[in-house]
Amino acid sequence: MTTESSELYPVTRIARVREAVAASGLDALLLTPGPDLRYVCGYDAHALERLTCLVVPAAGEAFMMVPRLELPAAQASPAGRTGVEFVPWDETDDPYAVVAKRLGTVGAVGLADRMWAMQSLRFREALPGAEQALAGRVLRELRMRKSPAEAAALRAAGAAIDAVHELVPSLLRAGRTERQVGRDIADAIMNAGHATIDFVIVGSGPNSASPHHELSDRVIQPGDPVVVDIGGTMPSGYCSDSTRNYVVGEPGKEYLAYFEVLRRAQEVACEFVKPGVTCEAVDAAAREVIADAGYGEYFIHRTGHGIGLESHEEPYIVAGNTELMAPGFAFSIEPGIYLPGRHGARIEDIVICGESGGERLNLTTRDLVVVG
Amino acid sequence: MTTESSELYPVTRIARVREAVAASGLDALLLTPGPDLRYVCGYDAHALERLTCLVVPAAGEAFMMVPRLELPAAQASPAGRTGVEFVPWDETDDPYAVVAKRLGTVGAVGLADRMWAMQSLRFREALPGAEQALAGRVLRELRMRKSPAEAAALRAAGAAIDAVHELVPSLLRAGRTERQVGRDIADAIMNAGHATIDFVIVGSGPNSASPHHELSDRVIQPGDPVVVDIGGTMPSGYCSDSTRNYVVGEPGKEYLAYFEVLRRAQEVACEFVKPGVTCEAVDAAAREVIADAGYGEYFIHRTGHGIGLESHEEPYIVAGNTELMAPGFAFSIEPGIYLPGRHGARIEDIVICGESGGERLNLTTRDLVVVG
Repeated sequence: MTTESSELYPVTRIARVREAVAASGLDALLLTPGPDLRYVCGYDAHALERLTCLVVPAAGEAFMMVPRLELPAAQASPAGRTGVEFVPWDETDDPYAVVAKRLGTVGAVGLADRMWAMQSLRFREALPGAEQALAGRVLRELRMRKSPAEAAALRAAGAAIDAVHELVPSLLRAGRTERQVGRDIADAIMNAGHATIDFVIVGSGPNSASPHHELSDRVIQPGDPVVVDIGGTMPSGYCSDSTRNYVVGEPGKEYLAYFEVLRRAQEVACEFVKPGVTCEAVDAAAREVIADAGYGEYFIHRTGHGIGLESHEEPYIVAGNTELMAPGFAFSIEPGIYLPGRHGARIEDIVICGESGGERLNLTTRDLVVVG
Repeated sequence: MTTESSELYPVTRIARVREAVAASGLDALLLTPGPDLRYVCGYDAHALERLTCLVVPAAGEAFMMVPRLELPAAQASPAGRTGVEFVPWDETDDPYAVVAKRLGTVGAVGLADRMWAMQSLRFREALPGAEQALAGRVLRELRMRKSPAEAAALRAAGAAIDAVHELVPSLLRAGRTERQVGRDIADAIMNAGHATIDFVIVGSGPNSASPHHELSDRVIQPGDPVVVDIGGTMPSGYCSDSTRNYVVGEPGKEYLAYFEVLRRAQEVACEFVKPGVTCEAVDAAAREVIADAGYGEYFIHRTGHGIGLESHEEPYIVAGNTELMAPGFAFSIEPGIYLPGRHGARIEDIVICGESGGERLNLTTRDLVVVG
C-alpha cells in the first residue's frame, strides 16, 4: 500500500496545512489521534490515554509528541516520510508541558475536532493564555475537497460496499432474524476488503420505519420491506456507506407508491449536484419531490453527510448549510420516507461533486430488490 | 442479555452518580457517547457528530439529549429502564442551547473524559460562565471499583481471550507472516464471543523487542520468539487483554535466561496485590525483580493499566501513582524485557484486587510455549 498511501497522504501536506494555519490567525494546530491527524500526516494512531499529538505551528517546524513505546509505529507510518520531528516521551514525563515549552506564548490553538476532553483540558492548563478553537476551522476547507487519490479511495470503498449489497439477496429470507442476516453482512463487509465494519442496519417490517435502527432478533416475515444500510472503513482510511431496499416476496401497494417517489427524489437530488449550488439546495431538491407527493412529514432527517476519513463529516446536506458545492466534495444523498410503526425506505449513494456534476460511487440497482 | 445487563448497568446508578456529583462540587456531568455514558446508564451510543448527551445535575433530574433519529435506540438500551427523561432534538435545533437553558446558571461542569473538542467547545460557548472539569473526577472512584457483575463480565472476557491463546499454537509456525497469523487470531477473537477486536500484536523475532509493534509482513523464522498480545471488547462492554510468549522451535539461551526473570517478576507483582498497597508499589515490585537480575534498563514501560469498559483506564500501575489498591480494582500486570533490535518478551494477566489479594483472570500457561 506504499504507493497508494504516498498519494493519499502526500508528504507535502504538512507544509500546506502550515500555510493554512498561518492564514487562519491560529498559532498552532494540536492534532491527537483521529481523522484530522491521519489526514495531515497519514498516521493512523490508536486513540489512547498516552498523548500522541502532532503540533503544526503557524511559524516554525511541525513536531509530533509520541509515547516512546509508539515511536517505531509512528516512524513506520506515512508520517515517517514527512520529515516531521518525533519527540518521544517516557512514562513519567509530562508531554503537555513539553508542548507548551516548545510553543512558547501562543494566543490561539486549534484542537483536533475529536480531541478528548482529558487532553483538551490538560492543554488548557498547560497553555493557560491560549484560546482554544477547532482545527476544523483550518482543515475543513482542505478535507472537504477530496484530491484525485482520495476520490479514488472513496471509489474503491464504494465498489467494496456494492459487492456486499450484491450478496444481500442470497442472505435475506423470511424466517431469519435481522441479527443473523446482519452477522453474515458483517462478514461480507470484511471479505470485501474493509478494515473495519462501521455499521450494519437491517431494518425489517416496522423496523424499516426507524432510520437508525440497527439489528434486532426480529424474525423477517413474508412481505417485509427491509432497509439495509451498511458501511465500513477501508485500509486506506476512507469509508463506505450505501443503503438499498429489499422486499421479501410481494411488496404492498402503498409501499410501492412512496418507494417510487423516493426513487425520484434521490435521482433529482443527485442530478442537482454541481459546483456553486448550496448544500441546503441539494437537501431542498430531494425534499421538494417528497413533499410534493404528500410525504413531506415522513422525511425526518437531513438528505446527507460528507464522507471521507470519517463516515460522517462536512459538508452536511441539510437546511441552513449555505456552503457552496465545489469539485471534490464527497457526501451521501440519502432521502427516506418512514411511516411510523409500519414501514419505510431509504436510498443512499455516495456522490462526488465533479467539474460539471455529481458522480455516484454506488452503482448497484436503486430499484426495490425482491428476494426469497 | 437483559438480566446480565440489568446487573451490569443497574437502574439505580444514575442516582448514585448524582449524589457523587453533588459531593464533588460540580453542578452537572455532561456525558457524551463513550465509556462514561455507558457506565452511568448502559447506553452504548455511537459517537457521531449529532449530540447525544446525558446531563446529570447535582440538583434536579437527569435528562438525555438525543437526536430524534436515535430515540428508539436510546429507549431500547438499558437507559430506557432508568426512568431518565429523553429530550429528542431535530436536525435544525441547537441541542447545546437546550442543555444550557435547562441547566440555568452553573459554576462548573464535568465533561465525559472522551468528549470530543467539537462538543466541549460548543458547551463552552453555550455555558460561558461554567468552568469545565473532567467527569472522571466524579466517576473514577465508582468506575475503578468493579461491582460483582462487572467482575463477572471481566472474568468472561478473560476466559474468551484465554480461548484464543489456546488456539495460537495451531496458527503459529515458521513460514507464515505475522499478518497471516494475526488475521486468524482476529477471527478467533470474534469466534470466542467478543463484539469487537481491539488489538492484535504478533511481534516475531526482532519485532518482539518493540512493545507496541502490531503486525507486519515479516515471515516468522525458525527459532523466533513471538509476543502475542491480544484483546477485544465483549458484548457486555467489558474488555479483555492478555499477552503470552511463544517460540518457534528452539529458544536461545540468553532469551531463556531473561524469560525466567520476567516470569518471576510477573508472579511477584501479582502476589503483591492487596488492598492498601499503592499502585506504584505494585509497579516497583515487578521492576525490582527485573532490575536485580540486571535487566532494569530493558523494562521500558509501566507495569499495567486499569481495564473495564475501556481497555486502558484508571488505575495505572506506574511510578508516581500513590492511589491505594481497593477491592474491585481491575488492571493488567504486564512487565516486559526488550533487547532492542534483537528480541523481547512480556507476560500479561488481568488481575482483580479482592479482599485479601489479587485474582488472575487469565489462566493459560505463563510459561514459554514451544510451537511448530
